Amino acid sequence: MEQRIRDSFAAQSLMKTFGATVAEVAPGRVVLEAPIGEGVRQQHGAGHAGLTFALADTAAGYAALTLMPEGREVMTVEAKINLMSPCIGDRLIARGEVAKAGRRLTICRAEVVALRDGRETCIALMQATMIPVDP
Amino acid sequence: MEQRIRDSFAAQSLMKTFGATVAEVAPGRVVLEAPIGEGVRQQHGAGHAGLTFALADTAAGYAALTLMPEGREVMTVEAKINLMSPCIGDRLIARGEVAKAGRRLTICRAEVVALRDGRETCIALMQATMIPVDP
Amino acid sequence: MEQRIRDSFAAQSLMKTFGATVAEVAPGRVVLEAPIGEGVRQQHGAGHAGLTFALADTAAGYAALTLMPEGREVMTVEAKINLMSPCIGDRLIARGEVAKAGRRLTICRAEVVALRDGRETCIALMQATMIPVDP
Amino acid sequence: MEQRIRDSFAAQSLMKTFGATVAEVAPGRVVLEAPIGEGVRQQHGAGHAGLTFALADTAAGYAALTLMPEGREVMTVEAKINLMSPCIGDRLIARGEVAKAGRRLTICRAEVVALRDGRETCIALMQATMIPVDP
Repeated sequence: MEQRIRDSFAAQSLMKTFGATVAEVAPGRVVLEAPIGEGVRQQHGAGHAGLTFALADTAAGYAALTLMPEGREVMTVEAKINLMSPCIGDRLIARGEVAKAGRRLTICRAEVVALRDGRETCIALMQATMIPVDP
Repeated sequence: MEQRIRDSFAAQSLMKTFGATVAEVAPGRVVLEAPIGEGVRQQHGAGHAGLTFALADTAAGYAALTLMPEGREVMTVEAKINLMSPCIGDRLIARGEVAKAGRRLTICRAEVVALRDGRETCIALMQATMIPVDP
Repeated sequence: MEQRIRDSFAAQSLMKTFGATVAEVAPGRVVLEAPIGEGVRQQHGAGHAGLTFALADTAAGYAALTLMPEGREVMTVEAKINLMSPCIGDRLIARGEVAKAGRRLTICRAEVVALRDGRETCIALMQATMIPVDP
Repeated sequence: MEQRIRDSFAAQSLMKTFGATVAEVAPGRVVLEAPIGEGVRQQHGAGHAGLTFALADTAAGYAALTLMPEGREVMTVEAKINLMSPCIGDRLIARGEVAKAGRRLTICRAEVVALRDGRETCIALMQATMIPVDP
């Protein structure tokens, strides 16, 4: 299961553009990391909400995929994200978890924390709906 | 007002990374465009939800900014996006609009369409809350 | 189709509790009305967010149902509502519309306006995801 | 602080209509309960999403209020709710918690469980944004 997630993740060119990596894969849980690099900023030099969303959504989607039968893929139906603090620091960690794996839909939650001088600040919370699809 | 938006947009390195441009600025409305390029894909070659979100959020945020007094900045409090169709095509157009400019918060909506062989498909709808901040 | 919606609506005891009525049924669109009565208030005497949500969600759900084959029912997967102004006035009007009727999911939007001395104030905007179910 | 919450809750006529009660008040956390009574149903006899939302939103709002200075009130800016299972059972329990109390906004989460023959089923998850207001 972990290999399936890692292979799929490696095929996402946006994750490569962001320099993101898979930090953890467990049943119902996926953790991603990425630097807050030069090319992902908003107008004041903080990380862009698009970076935060992309990591949260990807972590949540793969968390859902860990609980699906082999051969299925997952798509985001919708996601809602609260951006609570500016995205400032060296790196982001996005932790996605399955809240409820239903027959037709999977509900996930994710949090994104910014690492700055070794201290974590929670900068975003997501609640999202995932749907299995045939590849 | 338009110059203020364009200058701020030009300072967003993520928009540069995405090759995004400002197509239209009007009071309460901002339209952005970006190619669905090589480096912004998910695992099956479609555009990543992070790209779609980033454009919708940026268009919505700048739409809010058009109605704020000079010298204010805007931040996304939260955003909810429905991803309705795969992000397939040549380019994305993100249209952000102010639904209600309140005293303390501004509510925006955005739609993202994919252009494929000249035909538009609506791939995402966003509803978001923006807050003015001091720079 | 209209009779099907009206019969289903009449079977919702919460709508009876709220004194709500069906004002309009058209393909992809349903409008409901309800008084801001004595028993539906929050602590300051305005209408409760639960009333506003219930009407918006019900209007959106039935709007989705108008486009589904006979014999199907509809359930709300999730809904996001912005409450933009206090719910003050004599009556609420909730207008639900289908934004995209997909094969597996239907995306709806709704607005709720308060009527006060004949003038409309938009108090809420909803974006929601509906799913067809077998009864 | 608990008395302030209980007095405010007692002034909400919708909560009286629903037969809801305050089960717990702690800093950053409020738990409400209500029967799934005769007058709060949807067309198939399950509890209406409006009931579930009203309890989740009220629990979340009061959870936010527990952390605000005396004399402030709280309003819901927006709320997003996933409805994961039908609202079937004898009673609902809504647990609201503060996820982040910011200077200008407070982010809350809530879960709603249905009690059926003594067993809990999680039927809904909410993520919401609250704002302090002067009374």
